Amino acid sequence: MTDPEDLAERVHDGDLRLHELEEYADHDDAAKARRLLVERETGAELDAIGDYAFPAEQADPNVENMIGAAQVPMGVVGPVDVDGGAADGEHYLPLATTEGALLASVNRGLGIIRAAGGAEARVTKNGMTRAPVFRVDGVAEAADTVEWVADNLEALREAAESTTSHGELLDIEPYVVGDSVFLRFAYDTKDAMGMNMATIATGEACVLVESETPASLVALSGNLCSDKKPAAVNAVEGRGRSVTADVLVPGELVENRLHTTADAIAEANTRKNLIGSAKAGSLGFNAHAANVVGAAFLATGQDEAQVVEAANTITTMDARKRADGTTDLYASVSLASLEVGTVGGGTKLPTQAEALEILGLRGGGDPPGSNADALAEIIAVGALAGELSLLGALSSRHLASAHEDLGR
Amino acid sequence: MTDPEDLAERVHDGDLRLHELEEYADHDDAAKARRLLVERETGAELDAIGDYAFPAEQADPNVENMIGAAQVPMGVVGPVDVDGGAADGEHYLPLATTEGALLASVNRGLGIIRAAGGAEARVTKNGMTRAPVFRVDGVAEAADTVEWVADNLEALREAAESTTSHGELLDIEPYVVGDSVFLRFAYDTKDAMGMNMATIATGEACVLVESETPASLVALSGNLCSDKKPAAVNAVEGRGRSVTADVLVPGELVENRLHTTADAIAEANTRKNLIGSAKAGSLGFNAHAANVVGAAFLATGQDEAQVVEAANTITTMDARKRADGTTDLYASVSLASLEVGTVGGGTKLPTQAEALEILGLRGGGDPPGSNADALAEIIAVGALAGELSLLGALSSRHLASAHEDLGR
Amino acid sequence: MTDPEDLAERVHDGDLRLHELEEYADHDDAAKARRLLVERETGAELDAIGDYAFPAEQADPNVENMIGAAQVPMGVVGPVDVDGGAADGEHYLPLATTEGALLASVNRGLGIIRAAGGAEARVTKNGMTRAPVFRVDGVAEAADTVEWVADNLEALREAAESTTSHGELLDIEPYVVGDSVFLRFAYDTKDAMGMNMATIATGEACVLVESETPASLVALSGNLCSDKKPAAVNAVEGRGRSVTADVLVPGELVENRLHTTADAIAEANTRKNLIGSAKAGSLGFNAHAANVVGAAFLATGQDEAQVVEAANTITTMDARKRADGTTDLYASVSLASLEVGTVGGGTKLPTQAEALEILGLRGGGDPPGSNADALAEIIAVGALAGELSLLGALSSRHLASAHEDLGR
Amino acid sequence: MTDPEDLAERVHDGDLRLHELEEYADHDDAAKARRLLVERETGAELDAIGDYAFPAEQADPNVENMIGAAQVPMGVVGPVDVDGGAADGEHYLPLATTEGALLASVNRGLGIIRAAGGAEARVTKNGMTRAPVFRVDGVAEAADTVEWVADNLEALREAAESTTSHGELLDIEPYVVGDSVFLRFAYDTKDAMGMNMATIATGEACVLVESETPASLVALSGNLCSDKKPAAVNAVEGRGRSVTADVLVPGELVENRLHTTADAIAEANTRKNLIGSAKAGSLGFNAHAANVVGAAFLATGQDEAQVVEAANTITTMDARKRADGTTDLYASVSLASLEVGTVGGGTKLPTQAEALEILGLRGGGDPPGSNADALAEIIAVGALAGELSLLGALSSRHLASAHEDLGR
Repeated sequence: MTDPEDLAERVHDGDLRLHELEEYADHDDAAKARRLLVERETGAELDAIGDYAFPAEQADPNVENMIGAAQVPMGVVGPVDVDGGAADGEHYLPLATTEGALLASVNRGLGIIRAAGGAEARVTKNGMTRAPVFRVDGVAEAADTVEWVADNLEALREAAESTTSHGELLDIEPYVVGDSVFLRFAYDTKDAMGMNMATIATGEACVLVESETPASLVALSGNLCSDKKPAAVNAVEGRGRSVTADVLVPGELVENRLHTTADAIAEANTRKNLIGSAKAGSLGFNAHAANVVGAAFLATGQDEAQVVEAANTITTMDARKRADGTTDLYASVSLASLEVGTVGGGTKLPTQAEALEILGLRGGGDPPGSNADALAEIIAVGALAGELSLLGALSSRHLASAHEDLGR
Repeated sequence: MTDPEDLAERVHDGDLRLHELEEYADHDDAAKARRLLVERETGAELDAIGDYAFPAEQADPNVENMIGAAQVPMGVVGPVDVDGGAADGEHYLPLATTEGALLASVNRGLGIIRAAGGAEARVTKNGMTRAPVFRVDGVAEAADTVEWVADNLEALREAAESTTSHGELLDIEPYVVGDSVFLRFAYDTKDAMGMNMATIATGEACVLVESETPASLVALSGNLCSDKKPAAVNAVEGRGRSVTADVLVPGELVENRLHTTADAIAEANTRKNLIGSAKAGSLGFNAHAANVVGAAFLATGQDEAQVVEAANTITTMDARKRADGTTDLYASVSLASLEVGTVGGGTKLPTQAEALEILGLRGGGDPPGSNADALAEIIAVGALAGELSLLGALSSRHLASAHEDLGR
Repeated sequence: MTDPEDLAERVHDGDLRLHELEEYADHDDAAKARRLLVERETGAELDAIGDYAFPAEQADPNVENMIGAAQVPMGVVGPVDVDGGAADGEHYLPLATTEGALLASVNRGLGIIRAAGGAEARVTKNGMTRAPVFRVDGVAEAADTVEWVADNLEALREAAESTTSHGELLDIEPYVVGDSVFLRFAYDTKDAMGMNMATIATGEACVLVESETPASLVALSGNLCSDKKPAAVNAVEGRGRSVTADVLVPGELVENRLHTTADAIAEANTRKNLIGSAKAGSLGFNAHAANVVGAAFLATGQDEAQVVEAANTITTMDARKRADGTTDLYASVSLASLEVGTVGGGTKLPTQAEALEILGLRGGGDPPGSNADALAEIIAVGALAGELSLLGALSSRHLASAHEDLGR
Repeated sequence: MTDPEDLAERVHDGDLRLHELEEYADHDDAAKARRLLVERETGAELDAIGDYAFPAEQADPNVENMIGAAQVPMGVVGPVDVDGGAADGEHYLPLATTEGALLASVNRGLGIIRAAGGAEARVTKNGMTRAPVFRVDGVAEAADTVEWVADNLEALREAAESTTSHGELLDIEPYVVGDSVFLRFAYDTKDAMGMNMATIATGEACVLVESETPASLVALSGNLCSDKKPAAVNAVEGRGRSVTADVLVPGELVENRLHTTADAIAEANTRKNLIGSAKAGSLGFNAHAANVVGAAFLATGQDEAQVVEAANTITTMDARKRADGTTDLYASVSLASLEVGTVGGGTKLPTQAEALEILGLRGGGDPPGSNADALAEIIAVGALAGELSLLGALSSRHLASAHEDLGR
């Protein structure tokens, strides 16, 4: 083993390449050597980055060219009171963020939800997708290929599932564009977010497609999946979990805790989240669902770039009149494509695993998939709380300004 | 000052609320007390979360109810060789992620870019937006309001800019939907990402609009901004920086380093990134730009949820024939809405500030805005590298499979 | 029976209402009376509008308050040479339009297609959709409703199909947004465009849903159908026929007839139809498919407003190298949602029925559905011809300008 | 001159081509010859198509290969009672359609609008666009080109306006995607719909761009215009006229004429037009605006394929409480991109010109543009009537079913 100073020197001299250091030292020393090199070449001091709280080797499946860790402040909100298909009872929700006021806002919303007796939540659809694109000679071959796929679902399932002990192929949806054929494979990947599982299984199925049809694989992902892109196919058909959560907030609570009325909140939601997003050509009809999801993803080791799909969220807020004349607030969020897992990926890293422990959802669920379902439901309730709190703030300010108007 | 055990006890007993602890102890003890409470109530052990590398007080502007930090592995790639409008020369790019193989892939792409003589990059548009929604009586009042705004731009500018020493109002674009009027304010916020600056300035301008027109403010953000939602208004008109980067990779390099041809890469890009995304109803025509942007955002203290807008990226890959008959690969990425800053927000946190030091872009630039421009350009080149590497891998695998085809 | 002058007088005097005239006179006299009234009140002369070529009574199912007819110039193009799943051989295609040069352009494209040996075409998907929206109490009831639907497909099919002798229920796709449940029913409506059939059948199925679940019908169309709106659900999943057509144009033809090269056309298509549409946030990646479809719809009695969905078309153009070094042009169009019929609606009107006769596709096909399939395929080839011709023109002009560039 | 039988014979024999007949006979005989030929080759009888009401020569600018005319039933609705920026008072609105019940529905809505005291309407934006795409070497040249355009707006305006006596260049918006530069030119084309005017003017400006910058024109339309495609750029920024219309319907009228309540209509609109369209990934948040626009376009000689852009319409319906406790219905439509003209194109054809006479809007307005503005406003009110009527019908049926629910 070589000491970090020497390694840094050798990289500087061009004898070694930056990514080769783990061959010459343990992971922590390799990371240190890189810091030394970067410090020398840039003048930066990397003390905080180097002051990470886990053996570098543990991050080996997650990063290359490691120099240390980014540390993002983490707090807790809650408890989240949820009556879900998988989640039940009260859970603290850890959130990691750099955006001040976010946790305070979510926490306020969760307090209202608890006071209202809790939120309900359901995963209404589940399927991790991968959609390879094939080249064919033309539309006739395309039609033949699609027909072959429809006729051979069982063989394709067998091929796909041969690569995984957990995953189940749910469906294959074909799309034809000229001489390109896209097959959107959807899997139940249980407690894993499942991109890798879906990719490997689909790869195996593609071998069969290529051997039995004229279609030739161009790319294992043809963007109809669609991963980390703002795509209607996800917003409409879902990807990962489609999860929805709602709460009925009694009018008294709206008045006492949010200092506004159900009607005022419903108006703000309609003008902003529905009409404003409509005019913006948006696939996201919400106030800031991505904030809550992003912070929960970061805390629990989800794929940070999949916040993109999480933003495909519709928030509704309606005034519901009771028989006695008082008006309650019905509020809901529907996240079309929330990709979460409690095993694999970043969930094994120390701080992230602890965050899942806080939720009681670390590792595989019983039955399989129930932990990821529960995580989706709890995050959805967190997003609901964030929406409630922000819309409440907007409309109470608005009410205040309306009152001032009357005074002038 | 109370010790953490006591504080936890008092929260447990309902004497204190979770967010009040900083009133009774310093920030680190308050965080510790929360960990104790959460550990007691959930059975989780939060050692890693508690082992953070900065004084908790430093995170006070970034988080509430702090319990510690999420630690995300960080590596470096590069150097990034860029000839930009603001960025110049070679820069190591820090990336924080939990997705294995990401840095290796970007690094491979950056190596090719360096071998090709570097990438060019330009910020082609810059404007942080905030779009309040107003209620009017009907379309006649809406038209009057829009006319008043057009006639009083200078007064609105004065009001908006009175709240900021740096920001400049660039434009106000009106949109009418029935009895809702949206005004999309765009600002040059220099080296700040600028959401807060834009919000405060717009709030002040709204006071003027409300006092001089019949319009009544419903929400300071009316979703035509559009923040953290997958919205066409951002993809078309931009938000934050619109930045584009490209490189011309000589055919020899494509062959020797990517083991494929410019034609094969161009085909894969067209079928996947253009046609596949078209069929998916997407606003993102790229392979995985969000991966690179997300990891750079996390490392450098950007707003993690704004990865959503970053995904509004178009990747192009074309084969360009030289006079001598060889074929080079032209590759570009165009990020319509990249929201970045080098001051404020999460950029002051220790690991994030160090990451900006690595880039030589910590704090305000000279001239103002140049550091954020340079950051945008470097991230764009990083995204370009990621696209090159992934498309190269897809098409070399494809070529391999094509070769096998010939053999059977 | 009253004479038209008297009727007009009585409407003028307020004794009769404009829509009641058919109760007092035959349809032609009623129309004449309305013309007289409108002429008197507006000063217009309506001779041409009154000079229509069919008994007014024949238009009774198609219009109310009839005053006559709009006459739109109709021409023919072709023959269209098509090798389709349903269409075969050569067909003249009638087009009605007011846009000069449209028929000339399509005709030029069809000439090239014939010279290239004809186009291939396939209907790759078929399903007319109707998606009612139901109100439920919340997400728990929503999940229950969706589950009930999945468990009772056969009963729903029976209910739906009880209303139609031809239509077949293919699928019901559920979507949940908070306390709204949408069920997207898809039908094979054979040779009818099928909106009415789908609506009536769905209405019957809704009775069952309402009686067996807590869901309460709010609107028989909940816009997830989606009819006459530019919606991703149609562009991605299809509505009516998903039809695709293509042709391989030998390089010699491209040169001799279009005066350009396959490479130049492919470049124009990529920059305009793919990248330009991508940047525009579009669901239509074509040059002017709606022109051809609109003109064919008008000629053959289709629903003119469904041109909206027809615009969800992707055009691809690629240069394909032959072994001998010459480069051919592969061109395709893929219309995701083409809603056509050869029975019902406007197809029975005299000029429209004659136009269908020209195509040999008037009335029901054998087997049922084959006439509408064939119509879809022929229109697709017409659209392909229009794309070929326009892209050829653009790139030959471009080539010309490129040549001039060299000269300066 | 040759007689039609002979001409048909010669085409059949291959001596003449179908489009050459006008060289050998007058336009009516040429059309007759084509009918004869088509009749012989297809067995169709084309009597109705041949029975058109105008000299064929008059349609020469509108069609090639003419065989006659499509006759579409036309009726009138109204009067439309409108207080607009350009339109004023009561106008009969002619509509041509094959969709039964459409006119009855619009007429019912117009009756309610009249009873409510009329609708208000405003054109809030006006600009016909054309967006050429240029090729540059890379992003550096792209940035230079964009900068040159910004610096030379006056020269570009001079070039563009040199081609037109009426049109005025309003703006040029640049968009960069890698090595493609798009310039979106917007014009005030007064009473013309203006596509041709905009295309010719832009063509002249492009000459200047090409001569003064490194940019090379690839296509005069680069799809960011965007013509006849469902594109967000039109829905967000507008094309042609952005027009909005609204009405406040007293609660008594809602009850007596629509047999429902403002609350019920508002609910149906929110669930269907807002939430349903949101979930569908739509750019159109309305019930059937395209129906009304399409029928008005057909009657008045507009471009039938531009119904595509007209579908970019947002409908809002809200319950507004009066001080006395009764609830009125506020209803609005906002058409982002309505492309209309009263001169040029199909407006000169006999039946279409008469239809414009009915509206009192044939030919150029005083001031220029006011006739097209007024046409836009009247069509918008027609669309509003259609929305009112349909939503009213949906929610009264719903109320009925709700009442039944209570009874079971």
